[in-house]
Amino acid sequence: MVPGTRMTLVLTSVLLLILEVQCLDNGLARTPPMGWLTWTRFLCNVDIINDYDNAITGELLMQMADRMVYDGYKDAGYEYVIVDDCWSYFSRDSAGKLFPHPHRFPRGMKYVADYVHSKGLKFGIYADVGTQTCDGYAGSLGNYSVDAQTFADWGVDYVKVDGCNVDPAKMDKLYPEFGEAILATGRPMVYSCEWPLYQLSVGIEPNYTRIAATCNLWRNYADITYAWNQIYSTVEFQARHQDILTKVSGPGAWTDPDMVVIGNYGLDVALQRTHMAYWAIMASPLLMSNDLRHISEESKAILLNKHVIAVNQDKLGIMGKRISKVKGVDMWSRWIGPRLPNGKASMAVVVHNSNLQGSPMKTVIFISDLGLDNPRGYVLSDLFNNNATIGLFYPGMNLTVAVPPMDVLMFKATITDR
Amino acid sequence: MVPGTRMTLVLTSVLLLILEVQCLDNGLARTPPMGWLTWTRFLCNVDIINDYDNAITGELLMQMADRMVYDGYKDAGYEYVIVDDCWSYFSRDSAGKLFPHPHRFPRGMKYVADYVHSKGLKFGIYADVGTQTCDGYAGSLGNYSVDAQTFADWGVDYVKVDGCNVDPAKMDKLYPEFGEAILATGRPMVYSCEWPLYQLSVGIEPNYTRIAATCNLWRNYADITYAWNQIYSTVEFQARHQDILTKVSGPGAWTDPDMVVIGNYGLDVALQRTHMAYWAIMASPLLMSNDLRHISEESKAILLNKHVIAVNQDKLGIMGKRISKVKGVDMWSRWIGPRLPNGKASMAVVVHNSNLQGSPMKTVIFISDLGLDNPRGYVLSDLFNNNATIGLFYPGMNLTVAVPPMDVLMFKATITDR
Repeated sequence: MVPGTRMTLVLTSVLLLILEVQCLDNGLARTPPMGWLTWTRFLCNVDIINDYDNAITGELLMQMADRMVYDGYKDAGYEYVIVDDCWSYFSRDSAGKLFPHPHRFPRGMKYVADYVHSKGLKFGIYADVGTQTCDGYAGSLGNYSVDAQTFADWGVDYVKVDGCNVDPAKMDKLYPEFGEAILATGRPMVYSCEWPLYQLSVGIEPNYTRIAATCNLWRNYADITYAWNQIYSTVEFQARHQDILTKVSGPGAWTDPDMVVIGNYGLDVALQRTHMAYWAIMASPLLMSNDLRHISEESKAILLNKHVIAVNQDKLGIMGKRISKVKGVDMWSRWIGPRLPNGKASMAVVVHNSNLQGSPMKTVIFISDLGLDNPRGYVLSDLFNNNATIGLFYPGMNLTVAVPPMDVLMFKATITDR
Repeated sequence: MVPGTRMTLVLTSVLLLILEVQCLDNGLARTPPMGWLTWTRFLCNVDIINDYDNAITGELLMQMADRMVYDGYKDAGYEYVIVDDCWSYFSRDSAGKLFPHPHRFPRGMKYVADYVHSKGLKFGIYADVGTQTCDGYAGSLGNYSVDAQTFADWGVDYVKVDGCNVDPAKMDKLYPEFGEAILATGRPMVYSCEWPLYQLSVGIEPNYTRIAATCNLWRNYADITYAWNQIYSTVEFQARHQDILTKVSGPGAWTDPDMVVIGNYGLDVALQRTHMAYWAIMASPLLMSNDLRHISEESKAILLNKHVIAVNQDKLGIMGKRISKVKGVDMWSRWIGPRLPNGKASMAVVVHNSNLQGSPMKTVIFISDLGLDNPRGYVLSDLFNNNATIGLFYPGMNLTVAVPPMDVLMFKATITDR
């Protein structure tokens, strides 16, 4: 077939070799971190009088740890339980240390971390490089070492560092400093940064090479919400910047499009599926923010889909790319294992109908246009249909699919050598 | 209680008297039209080779008419079956008349209209005041009388007239002309206009008094989609212009925020409920655009909710207003029947949590702040919970509700006189 006579696809080069940049050498986050985080679902709710169940408390975190174990999230790979902003007291203690609000964390933070560890999970916490957190609690500026040590003393495994209340131009100095302080404690702690987000917001071009060498993950775009247009804007942003982001993302260093809000409000099952598909193909951290105590079976099934999680957690660690957008149909691909000795690999593909009106969109996908050129072919399987086999496809073949508006098809093309 | 010491509500005056404007005197649309329309779900799909089931054909319209009867939509009040753009041939016939595309309407349009009528339903069609329709089919400019007569000859009961391909400044002349042509046929046909939409798009302030005296309904804002942010933008637009719109809307003349897309894609059950609640409280036409052949039970239940439809179809015909927006919680009210001999009426209330993050929002609603001052009180009932009684409330009382993000509570306050 003659290229150019049909749907134009931008071919991705088979970049299966070594990442071009030096990543943070703390040995952590070799695959995108998975876990649970308070923010989008519980925000800065501190009202334990009128809304105890939804307030940021030690009990909330421990309840979520329980659910992660009992309901299978831990077995599926989710391991971090992370508290976001509003856990601390407004000021430091007499020794200059951060401490949690005593009404909401009556037994302190180490107790919570120990509890989380007792469940076989890991514990994460939030800080800010500036003078105050985004919600006005004590910031870490000038106290990076003492705060990193406090976190290490409590048994923290993951530190999310926000960037409110400081000049973004200074972040090229401050984020590495906080990172050094974390490394200096000797305790392995994942380092999550919001560095490029704040720099982009004031027009500074982020130095992603430096960021990827400093942080295990970094936020680029506005906070996620339950609104699909906002989630899709996030995806669009990563797609527009994919040439740089795919270069710097990989084992130990991940582009973070923010939390996974599956199981909350506003997204129908198809949109939740689409959200999960994108986070998997983009090799994004899978940090849920939802109420695991109250979640539908459909949402749970999406969050626990082992085939999609396997794509997200693929050991090659190659962030996917959008390879085409034709008539509103977005096509993404990501090289994944298994890989043959000759270097040819398998692939995950997301076909998303981003149209907001109309009927299911029929799309013809030419196997060779995806860059799949193994003469012995690929077994295609439908990842949201229990990995059911679609068929054996050779490079000369094509697949016609009909994807409803706002929905997604995600398949894996597993390379064959027989 | 002292007003102003709590949540500030803008009280609506009890406008239960006569509308201030003269409405189109064709005796039609005394309540907001209800029915089904092709556009948002089927758009301009003319591909009967590859996508027959989703193409604009006579068969599609007849199938929908069947479903409207068999599945209870007709009994619930939905009566119009309307074809939007792309039904016609590109040009007129040798006699200068419009005619449907013969491949897709092989037995002509009168056959389809007759079939719809045989089911006890009414038939609607689409035209354009300009030289061409929005999708490039034959427009009606210069042919209003002949086209109106063609529609009358076919047995059309409802004409939607779009405004593509003509100068919006001329619409103040053209829409009344087309309306006169429709009246001149002697056949009662609802007249739906997009007049203000096109004028607003070029910065012309619409003359709503004139519009309401000419059209049975008028579109103000961009085409609806399956995306919640777009639907809510439409609602916000009507709220911002509610002072003028509530003055001109009423029996025979309705503000049209576009179709109801419940039962399609992208909206979870709560958002579909919210969509329905807003269309009811705004006294908006309930013109579904969906595939009644494939629809979930949940969506169907929302579309057939007789309690909510009763609000939409309330005989007083008073368009609701947004009375407050506090912490992202939008409160709307609409005076409805029953009404006591002393003039005091009942009320429908929508409480919508428009926040896109976080937990359910607790809100205290003071009965007297709603303008409900009947000393014998009101029976509050939950319209999306089978009209279940919430309780008997007097003006001095209040009601605390917790509405999840993006969801809605809709209740009726039925006035009591015992």
